[in-house]
Amino acid sequence: MSTLANSSNIFWHECPVGKTERHKLLNQKGCVVWITGLSGSGKSTLACSLSRELHSRGKLSYVLDGDNLRHGLNKGLGFSAEDRTENIRRVGEVAKLFADAGLICIASLISPYRKDRDACRAMLADANFIEVFMNMSLSLCESRDARGLYKLARAGKIKGFTGIDDPYEPPLNCEIEIQEKDGVCPTPSAMAGQVVSYLEDKGFLQDQ
Amino acid sequence: MSTLANSSNIFWHECPVGKTERHKLLNQKGCVVWITGLSGSGKSTLACSLSRELHSRGKLSYVLDGDNLRHGLNKGLGFSAEDRTENIRRVGEVAKLFADAGLICIASLISPYRKDRDACRAMLADANFIEVFMNMSLSLCESRDARGLYKLARAGKIKGFTGIDDPYEPPLNCEIEIQEKDGVCPTPSAMAGQVVSYLEDKGFLQDQ
Repeated sequence: MSTLANSSNIFWHECPVGKTERHKLLNQKGCVVWITGLSGSGKSTLACSLSRELHSRGKLSYVLDGDNLRHGLNKGLGFSAEDRTENIRRVGEVAKLFADAGLICIASLISPYRKDRDACRAMLADANFIEVFMNMSLSLCESRDARGLYKLARAGKIKGFTGIDDPYEPPLNCEIEIQEKDGVCPTPSAMAGQVVSYLEDKGFLQDQ
Repeated sequence: MSTLANSSNIFWHECPVGKTERHKLLNQKGCVVWITGLSGSGKSTLACSLSRELHSRGKLSYVLDGDNLRHGLNKGLGFSAEDRTENIRRVGEVAKLFADAGLICIASLISPYRKDRDACRAMLADANFIEVFMNMSLSLCESRDARGLYKLARAGKIKGFTGIDDPYEPPLNCEIEIQEKDGVCPTPSAMAGQVVSYLEDKGFLQDQ
């Protein structure tokens, strides 16, 4: 089939074990928790804390970390606008598979552009895409700078760094917003608690 | 970071909930069952039957179907040797994530070239990659031809069709071989049984 890309010869295979069966087995409903925000805004911290909290309740989750995936699935992609879009698209596609498999998939990526996040949202039934906006000020994120990336960006040694010389477009209608208070970020467990409450309210953690 | 592809600025994030915790939660060990063989050799049939059998034992599996993924994650990839390799590489990377998440991931792809399959094997700890070779003769596969693809290939209307004008390289050291007997393919449940026995023997289905 070397001459036919995405041709009509590619069929869809349905499997008898579906989403509903997996939900019953796992006692939860698959979904994507998409954590977006600046570098240093606490995305990975929330992802870890949330997966720990879910695990303690006997729920199966899996973290897709944007940085980690750049070592594997997205190896070979750079940081041009086009590559960023493709990077996020692939994470969205994989997150969709995990949600379909019944897991609470926690995707943690800067994902600075609204249109890229919305494209991922559009891959899923709307209620199953839960966008979490880490609404932390640039100054707070920059003051942490655990890896010295902001310093490098300010010195012009990293170009196109989100928040410095590349824009971050905040969500317009996210499901959850995590906010700093008096210049301080909530604790990891407080952040996780906020997301878990949402998941509970919406029935994702209930026995199916 | 637009100028730095895969730069040293991309760090690896470890999460406190790991593989072992997920294995305990699921009472199984994650792995990849990689089903390879000609078009019409029964890959999808085995994948479905196996996932049904595992589900009936309370085990969580997920099927990654090569054809289905071409509608999503691998949309945009064609059938050139290069695109086929990238197609298989991505499925391998995603299968690895699913195995890490604790699932028995069933990948079903023609994956005709040995080097592409071996590259996927190399992504995982060796014991966790279980290659299943659908060892069916071309004549058996062609006699089924449910979708009329072989007919099109024989008529020259599909070029580079595996088994017709593109090679299939059989595995040299696969874990499981499914064979036709007297020109007949085993039943779906017999094929699934063969794989389940293997998984049981190797401890993938045991309480962790």
